[in-house]
Amino acid sequence: MAEASGSEHYYAVIMAGGGGTRLWPLSRQGRPKQSLQLIGDRTMFQTTVDRLAPLFPPERILVVTSERYAADLHRQCPGLPGDNFVLEPATRGTAPAIALSARALRQRDPRAIMACLTADHYIGNAERFRQLLAAAGVLAELDHLVTLGITPTAPATGFGYIERGARLGEFHGFEAFRAQRFKEKPSAAEAVALVADGRHSWNSGMFVWRVAAIWAEFQRQMPGLAAVIENVETSPEGSQAAWNGVPNTTIDYGIMEGAHNVAVIPADGLGWSDIGSWEALLNVLDSDSAGNVVIGADHLSLETTDTLVHTVRGSSRPRLIATVGVSDLVIVDTDDVLLVCRRDRSQEVKLLVDRLKKSPGGSDYL
Amino acid sequence: MAEASGSEHYYAVIMAGGGGTRLWPLSRQGRPKQSLQLIGDRTMFQTTVDRLAPLFPPERILVVTSERYAADLHRQCPGLPGDNFVLEPATRGTAPAIALSARALRQRDPRAIMACLTADHYIGNAERFRQLLAAAGVLAELDHLVTLGITPTAPATGFGYIERGARLGEFHGFEAFRAQRFKEKPSAAEAVALVADGRHSWNSGMFVWRVAAIWAEFQRQMPGLAAVIENVETSPEGSQAAWNGVPNTTIDYGIMEGAHNVAVIPADGLGWSDIGSWEALLNVLDSDSAGNVVIGADHLSLETTDTLVHTVRGSSRPRLIATVGVSDLVIVDTDDVLLVCRRDRSQEVKLLVDRLKKSPGGSDYL
Repeated sequence: MAEASGSEHYYAVIMAGGGGTRLWPLSRQGRPKQSLQLIGDRTMFQTTVDRLAPLFPPERILVVTSERYAADLHRQCPGLPGDNFVLEPATRGTAPAIALSARALRQRDPRAIMACLTADHYIGNAERFRQLLAAAGVLAELDHLVTLGITPTAPATGFGYIERGARLGEFHGFEAFRAQRFKEKPSAAEAVALVADGRHSWNSGMFVWRVAAIWAEFQRQMPGLAAVIENVETSPEGSQAAWNGVPNTTIDYGIMEGAHNVAVIPADGLGWSDIGSWEALLNVLDSDSAGNVVIGADHLSLETTDTLVHTVRGSSRPRLIATVGVSDLVIVDTDDVLLVCRRDRSQEVKLLVDRLKKSPGGSDYL
Repeated sequence: MAEASGSEHYYAVIMAGGGGTRLWPLSRQGRPKQSLQLIGDRTMFQTTVDRLAPLFPPERILVVTSERYAADLHRQCPGLPGDNFVLEPATRGTAPAIALSARALRQRDPRAIMACLTADHYIGNAERFRQLLAAAGVLAELDHLVTLGITPTAPATGFGYIERGARLGEFHGFEAFRAQRFKEKPSAAEAVALVADGRHSWNSGMFVWRVAAIWAEFQRQMPGLAAVIENVETSPEGSQAAWNGVPNTTIDYGIMEGAHNVAVIPADGLGWSDIGSWEALLNVLDSDSAGNVVIGADHLSLETTDTLVHTVRGSSRPRLIATVGVSDLVIVDTDDVLLVCRRDRSQEVKLLVDRLKKSPGGSDYL
């Protein structure tokens, strides 16, 4: 696989700086989603690295994160070189994170192909995902800014959409297209139309490009950011003041919507989920015959269906969760917070988090 | 009131020996329902004693319980004389408890009128309840075994029913009747018919009689029990063996169904509840405008209705309970157990307890 994908100039950059509030109260300020063991015994970050290992040797896997999380992430994957952790002075959205890691990578290898990948997504078919990365690598070498698209399985309103334009060809079994338009999160009605027309993919937030190509776009479209980055040290000290002036911007809004030569590779069959809510997590976990998923708890139940019971307890004392006559619930039990949420309302957990941010004493629970 | 009710020979005997599994996981083997602060800051036992205080001085309030609970109950109501705690060697149902306390009371005052009362019921209108006791005291002096009936407000299947016979007269504003028949817990269809005919009252499990009259019934109908009781010491030591032979029997089954001269006083307007389930508790608590009742928890909610959130934590750490989009739930959060139960299924909690009794390690949670 490595040969087909651009060989020794192909790098993965894992974006692992996010805090993640949508799986609250499990994800917390000090325990971000990428560090959670949501599926099995490996953290999302570990699984991400595992998935890349057949394609990228450790020295070509970079991680962009904040100082706050770096030590823990390195502990999770000690095989990654310490130098490969690129530290953001503060989290400022994906555009600054990608610019910072693009600069670090360009210094290391001006010919680098850079796959910007997420640290906290679920991908059921890792082999197919690596084939997709190989295809994108080829397309990136042809100077496209490649976005990895996901073929929609539902009219989701939680993702951006990418409209395909002219066909560019087939690469490693995937068809590629010009990206004609980026559409931010749609309304429910818009989403139905976007899915129905067969020309739109979900924007996975994953991209592959030549580092020189993306850097040129930063210089053209976000020159202020590019200038700050040129002066920033990869260690966070001393650059905090300049970094504070960096706008909080996504790569989609800041670069992709106005970039030249953008391509999209729509992919199906990846078994992809961003696990953007408790319901999304429940959907990718193996459930028992009643549709229940129980993690970390002794569960005693009567007529309970389609319910997630997730317990993470710091204390050694076992805890019993008993449920009677309930269905379609998400029950998340941590040392200091209990969440009971209707499964189809789990998107609203972020509203709770917003409310906590504003309430006196609420930050204890963030 | 005291003058009207039989004066210095009128005694209250509070039956406080039950373990109570129906409010699990709050009620536990070591923390029975009568010792819980279910409504306000007073325990159910304290509230029971408070309710009786205008009618009975402390020296005429007896408590029948097990050695296990006696010290705690006395701590709750230190104004009651220690001699007034009658200890069952082991819990054997209401018939042995009443026989044991009847014997103790007969030794103290052969002319005693004995009101056998429960320790863990809710009574919204305490003044009316005392009027009922006064009425029952008069009827008991006329040598009736008086059962306190509750006018049904729903076709409940969780109570026994008492059918009224011939009218006996009016006492302190309450009409009294011969009790024609005791009917054990009915089926749902039977309950509808029992409530519809207007001749049936719920059996409250509370009774008033001359101690001599009830003792005569024990000697006639349960001579074995009466003989054991005659020999038993009021202290539990030494009588365990004899007590172990005592059948586990309710007063209804053992005595009342076959007794002579049984009367019933149907009472309405008491605001009575046996709090026999979480739903029953929710029904007597003051709820907020969304129908929610929150006890002991920081509660953060989005669109949550008709839900009880009850937290009792041994730890000093505050605990946040967050709920999103749920309704008609009972959420009970203790140090080692979390219960999430549909409100209208809370009767089934006892099935969980039964299952725990049979499962290895389950007794830790009883």
